[in-house]
Amino acid sequence: MENYRFIMDVGLILLTTKLLSMLSKRVKMPQVVGALMAGLILGPACLGMVDDNIFIQNIASLGVIVLMFEAGLGTDVNELKRSGKASLVIAIVGVIVPIFGGWALGTFFPLLGPGSFWENIFLGIILTATSVSITVETLKELGKLKTHSGNAILGAALIDDVLGIIGLSLVSGLAEGTVLVGFVLLKILAFIVVSILCGLFFRRIFQVWMNKASWNRKRFAVVSLAFCFIYAYVAEVLFGVADITGAYIAGLILSSTSRATFIEANCHTLSYMLLSPVFFASIGLKVNVSSLSSSLFLFSLLFILVAILTKVVGCGLGAKLCGYSNSDCLRIGTGMLSRGEVGLVIADKGIISGVIHTAYLTPVILMVTVTTIITPLLLKWTYRDAPGKQVPEEEEPNTLADAYGAVQNLEEASIQYLEKLERNQ
Amino acid sequence: MENYRFIMDVGLILLTTKLLSMLSKRVKMPQVVGALMAGLILGPACLGMVDDNIFIQNIASLGVIVLMFEAGLGTDVNELKRSGKASLVIAIVGVIVPIFGGWALGTFFPLLGPGSFWENIFLGIILTATSVSITVETLKELGKLKTHSGNAILGAALIDDVLGIIGLSLVSGLAEGTVLVGFVLLKILAFIVVSILCGLFFRRIFQVWMNKASWNRKRFAVVSLAFCFIYAYVAEVLFGVADITGAYIAGLILSSTSRATFIEANCHTLSYMLLSPVFFASIGLKVNVSSLSSSLFLFSLLFILVAILTKVVGCGLGAKLCGYSNSDCLRIGTGMLSRGEVGLVIADKGIISGVIHTAYLTPVILMVTVTTIITPLLLKWTYRDAPGKQVPEEEEPNTLADAYGAVQNLEEASIQYLEKLERNQ
Repeated sequence: MENYRFIMDVGLILLTTKLLSMLSKRVKMPQVVGALMAGLILGPACLGMVDDNIFIQNIASLGVIVLMFEAGLGTDVNELKRSGKASLVIAIVGVIVPIFGGWALGTFFPLLGPGSFWENIFLGIILTATSVSITVETLKELGKLKTHSGNAILGAALIDDVLGIIGLSLVSGLAEGTVLVGFVLLKILAFIVVSILCGLFFRRIFQVWMNKASWNRKRFAVVSLAFCFIYAYVAEVLFGVADITGAYIAGLILSSTSRATFIEANCHTLSYMLLSPVFFASIGLKVNVSSLSSSLFLFSLLFILVAILTKVVGCGLGAKLCGYSNSDCLRIGTGMLSRGEVGLVIADKGIISGVIHTAYLTPVILMVTVTTIITPLLLKWTYRDAPGKQVPEEEEPNTLADAYGAVQNLEEASIQYLEKLERNQ
Repeated sequence: MENYRFIMDVGLILLTTKLLSMLSKRVKMPQVVGALMAGLILGPACLGMVDDNIFIQNIASLGVIVLMFEAGLGTDVNELKRSGKASLVIAIVGVIVPIFGGWALGTFFPLLGPGSFWENIFLGIILTATSVSITVETLKELGKLKTHSGNAILGAALIDDVLGIIGLSLVSGLAEGTVLVGFVLLKILAFIVVSILCGLFFRRIFQVWMNKASWNRKRFAVVSLAFCFIYAYVAEVLFGVADITGAYIAGLILSSTSRATFIEANCHTLSYMLLSPVFFASIGLKVNVSSLSSSLFLFSLLFILVAILTKVVGCGLGAKLCGYSNSDCLRIGTGMLSRGEVGLVIADKGIISGVIHTAYLTPVILMVTVTTIITPLLLKWTYRDAPGKQVPEEEEPNTLADAYGAVQNLEEASIQYLEKLERNQ
């Protein structure tokens, strides 16, 4: 008998995420919070109507890849270059402080009796990698993605993602004694070199091809998306860099072609129609509250506190060193808070390779959930005094859906205008 | 270790289907043929780069559901009512002839020695259900979906889908002696009644909600798609009617709301960016030529011939009885040729419930592949003399992508026009 359950799962996820994000908007919260709540409510933590399974996980992975591809397509490369040095400093300080915090927590408040030095360090590594997708979505909603602080956050999150992966590879290797430090670093260096060469080569190929038609053809969007998926895969498997980093770089490569806006608009529709609701819901689906004992609960609480404090302090400090204003330091620190799926991936790999105990999974999942849910709330709060118009989701520029509305309005306006002209003659 | 293979699979499928459908277009073949070939080339039949797995299958299922939802949204209900009686006659004759053909083949040219009466009848049942999605896609491409013959095909395919499912349920039940004929028919009748009531109720609810905003909001598209998925699931699981029939009915229900075009355009983008390339490729992925022996090959060849002849003759005869012209009879018979995934589902269920032997799977898969590939080719040929403009895929009206291009052109034109006016003053 064929299994049809996944069709209902997708239907329920689309309906619930949309209804709850409409509700969040009504009570002036970021819509992402509603989408995350949908997963908590549908999943084992509450109603138990939808289970986390491999299909949902894969769709969610494609969702986060497309989100990062969109972010890359929309990035202003020149602005990124300007904020590059600052991003590097923010990322490095924002990685060192959480590693220290994780190690201190594991050493002084152990969950399962005193762990090894590397196990405690690994708790810190889990706290390093920022999941920038939630922040990107929130900044987009607030209309702050292309600001000075927005660019610093994006750049720093990308770099600390790479640092997190280096950390993961190094600690796993050192704890087992199998991986050569030099080899890991060499692969990452190779990825950077290949990306620069690919960037120059593929950008040119795509532009020549795109110049062959005078209008926006569907094929430009479809082939670009294929390029994104293949690049993400190659980054992950060949170079050991996270797939989402690969997707972001693929977007960056195509961001200066003449069809970037068109590709972004098509990917945006693909995102909001299916992929990103499933991604956001899948995070909430992973939470299972029933497995919480009181000592686990206490440890989780401390772990969450350490996660929040070390990142805000670390990144804020980094930003301060680069001469950002106090309010921008707070924004940058807060924007780097959410750990999302990257933290989960690192923890998962740590458990499989035996560096940390399985018992740590629940605290990690809770930390990821809480930091992901509070990031948009806190981020909105830190931008409360910032000047500039707030762009609500529905009126976001550069999307096909709005262009579609616009063409209808424009057509109507043109007709009325021409009719008026005729009457006047 | 997490598995990243599916990211590459999706990337390869998007790239290959797009490149091959561009190639088919260049040699004046329907683009669907290229997309189907992509699966054959990537899959175990040729390169073996992509395997058919549960993730690909699920995405493909969502793809065919969204295709049928789009078809429902674009259906002119009044035209369907007009062609309703004809569709019924075409479907019934087009089901009786293939059942007889399948039975005759199984009786006179048995693959594994003489089978039981029900096994041979079941071979006929596999030949009944038309997979209308390929035909819909081809007719769309040819700009013939909303013609007299196009509507007859759509209606008849829907009905013979229901007849196929009734046949499947009846034969499985009769062969095992467990299912009551009356119960199956009662559930289908209940589905029809519920659909009419739901149609009136939900159409009203959606319209009241859609009237609350003066512009096209994303939520209309997302919630409508959720409605489609939930309706498809309910049709399949509660009423035993195929999920794709449920999706088509869901589209039909929303087709007369004021946002139908907007919803369709959003679903179309979701389709061509991810879902439908995976669906078309997945059919080719199922073929494995290496398992062919010479007797299996001969049987498959005969099975394919019976599949083609019985459907063209049966449906053509039905159309003739309803007074269609000879050329329209040929078009209708040809349009009903492709069996697609419905034949596979029926065969799969028959094998699992033990009505037919596993050895029949390869002939069924080959029959599905061949009928699916030749349908667009033959269909295009039957319409070669038909009047009316042929609309190539890229210039299809009512899609967001084109609206997007149009808004840019229109804006430019408006600016130039206003500049000209100013200069003249």
